[in-house]
Amino acid sequence: MTVTAPQGFEAAGVAVGLKSTGKPDVAVVVNRGPLKVGAAVFTSNRAKANPILWSQQAIADGTVEAIVLNSGGANCFTGSFGFQTTHQTAEKAAELLDVSPGDILVCSTGLIGSGDETFRAKVLTGTETAIAGLSADGGDDAARAIMTTDTVSKTSTYTGDGWTIGAMAKGAGMLAPGLATMLVVITTDAVLDAATADAHLRAATRVSFNRLDSDGCMSTNDQVSLLVSGASGVVPDPDAFRSALVEVCTNLAVQLQADAEGASHDIAIQVVGAVTEDDAVEVGRSVARNNLFKAAIFGNDPNWGRVLAAIGTTQATFDPYAVDVSFNGVRLCSAGAPDRPREEVDLTPRATSVLIDLKAGDASATIYTNDLTHDYVHENSAYSS
Amino acid sequence: MTVTAPQGFEAAGVAVGLKSTGKPDVAVVVNRGPLKVGAAVFTSNRAKANPILWSQQAIADGTVEAIVLNSGGANCFTGSFGFQTTHQTAEKAAELLDVSPGDILVCSTGLIGSGDETFRAKVLTGTETAIAGLSADGGDDAARAIMTTDTVSKTSTYTGDGWTIGAMAKGAGMLAPGLATMLVVITTDAVLDAATADAHLRAATRVSFNRLDSDGCMSTNDQVSLLVSGASGVVPDPDAFRSALVEVCTNLAVQLQADAEGASHDIAIQVVGAVTEDDAVEVGRSVARNNLFKAAIFGNDPNWGRVLAAIGTTQATFDPYAVDVSFNGVRLCSAGAPDRPREEVDLTPRATSVLIDLKAGDASATIYTNDLTHDYVHENSAYSS
Repeated sequence: MTVTAPQGFEAAGVAVGLKSTGKPDVAVVVNRGPLKVGAAVFTSNRAKANPILWSQQAIADGTVEAIVLNSGGANCFTGSFGFQTTHQTAEKAAELLDVSPGDILVCSTGLIGSGDETFRAKVLTGTETAIAGLSADGGDDAARAIMTTDTVSKTSTYTGDGWTIGAMAKGAGMLAPGLATMLVVITTDAVLDAATADAHLRAATRVSFNRLDSDGCMSTNDQVSLLVSGASGVVPDPDAFRSALVEVCTNLAVQLQADAEGASHDIAIQVVGAVTEDDAVEVGRSVARNNLFKAAIFGNDPNWGRVLAAIGTTQATFDPYAVDVSFNGVRLCSAGAPDRPREEVDLTPRATSVLIDLKAGDASATIYTNDLTHDYVHENSAYSS
Repeated sequence: MTVTAPQGFEAAGVAVGLKSTGKPDVAVVVNRGPLKVGAAVFTSNRAKANPILWSQQAIADGTVEAIVLNSGGANCFTGSFGFQTTHQTAEKAAELLDVSPGDILVCSTGLIGSGDETFRAKVLTGTETAIAGLSADGGDDAARAIMTTDTVSKTSTYTGDGWTIGAMAKGAGMLAPGLATMLVVITTDAVLDAATADAHLRAATRVSFNRLDSDGCMSTNDQVSLLVSGASGVVPDPDAFRSALVEVCTNLAVQLQADAEGASHDIAIQVVGAVTEDDAVEVGRSVARNNLFKAAIFGNDPNWGRVLAAIGTTQATFDPYAVDVSFNGVRLCSAGAPDRPREEVDLTPRATSVLIDLKAGDASATIYTNDLTHDYVHENSAYSS
């Protein structure tokens, strides 16, 4: 049910030939109210796609009627023609739904630089077809229509005390969100005003999607949107709602990690003993972005030296010669010197944990990443659609 | 002849079993004077190997009698035992050469965390054997003894107006120098004082080794040393000497790039139209470290969208929608929109050029990198020696 699990939402996913495979490629999610509240966070990449430029304006008033999403083309760096395509998409949806174009969010994903006249025609057709097919159980179709190199659709729901959260996500490559991430649509029938929805969304993405760094490459099209229908009539307890939203977002982030292009290990890099949470995040991310570390994990090699070489490039507060490093529960490095033999570590399972104790403070954070594999290189050297 | 090309130097390279292959693994270069001037720059990684910690102290007075280098073990994060190994190495060389231990530089390269009692014994034996075999034409042996995953030894010489520069280098992985790089020994018989030698060395490394970023992974053991014998008796023209040093360092950097682990393309990322040289370097490096771009080049795919997505993550001054991007002379993106068809670009040659015009100013810089290949992943997932 995904985004249609909460009351007050309809969705659809249709195929219009943007994908050469013929699979669904345009999705629409409509908020039937009574509230039409929305919040969204966007990629912090300065190279932003046209739908991001559009949606940043559209979200400003905190009102969202619907969101149109397409796979099969990022509509990024496609010039003013590309921006007009996004604008026309919003106009088309608004006309059919009898609402204002300024309350329509647009998301695109696919190859950067693709967005010609054929693309525009297909997206507009898809928008029309999807809106004609909207239904209260269309969430699963919508989730499938936003997939690109994803092998499975990603969805999550949470049932609260009288209210519900539903969500869908896509993302398999260019997966290193900053401030926002990937394409994600979250819906809820809880009663929230725009400022509250925005605060909850930013808080949840900060500790979920923004802790995922699969391949160090930040996208131009990342967008996470929260649509609020208020159809349950229930004003949720703020802490309970935020916890639920964090759970939904973390659940989706883990699904994204598990389906990352070519990956053979899902790696949780847990950094403890940091002076600040920011330090812990910086240290974890330096390891998540180190190709030698990532290639070693692919080879089932618990190469702790590469961990120390990576964290030594950060500005975080710690003494490199005080640090402990453990792989899958075995401490291989203690206070900057070898500890247990590396043969004691079994890295054959897909789930991999690296624990880094900086011995400098009480803050911590976990960064989620993947290994660097032959398949990652292959998929991204051949990928052009 | 390499480091023994200038007058006043002797060198040797010997095999003592640090490498499982039985190839040479300990090198010594001795300055026979009359000057005993030295300068060195080191990795800016805060995780520094024991030989770096030692050599930083030893270079402080600008006097260097000799340098001892070993492959087959980085002696990094090996505790106080590892530092004592470096200290004993300097003591041993000093005793045999009848000089002060504080004037001996030490370099190590190989697996981080390796440096046990066997390692120490072999390094000390190698130091003794190499010093017993010093000769005025031992430069080539020394260059071979510092190789790790290098497939060829890297050397360079320059003949100036009455003076000569010789140099050797190693480095094939963990190749993203910051302020210094890899193991490099440069010798000259020109007459230079310590401050002048230091200034020339820093100026030359800044625009040569520090523009090389093969795999984004900064080493714990990088060291570039310049040894000055003054044996020619000639005080060089400062500009001529600096230009020569830049040429030697750039020549070595290109050799390092050409032999980078698993690479199938040598990529020059030329950034022009930047407001500052620092901006140009930051922009070039963001592309050099982008795995999706690097995998695309491996697949002969001129994916300019990934270039723009990479540079959009920087803080450099430019408008992402004004940028031009060319591959091998074909402009694929003009002012943030598609230009020539990507089919016009032939990426089958190993030499690859990417030109990024930021349209923001007059500064420029070129960053040298490699593609991300199956072989890179394979070599670094299996590499443990």
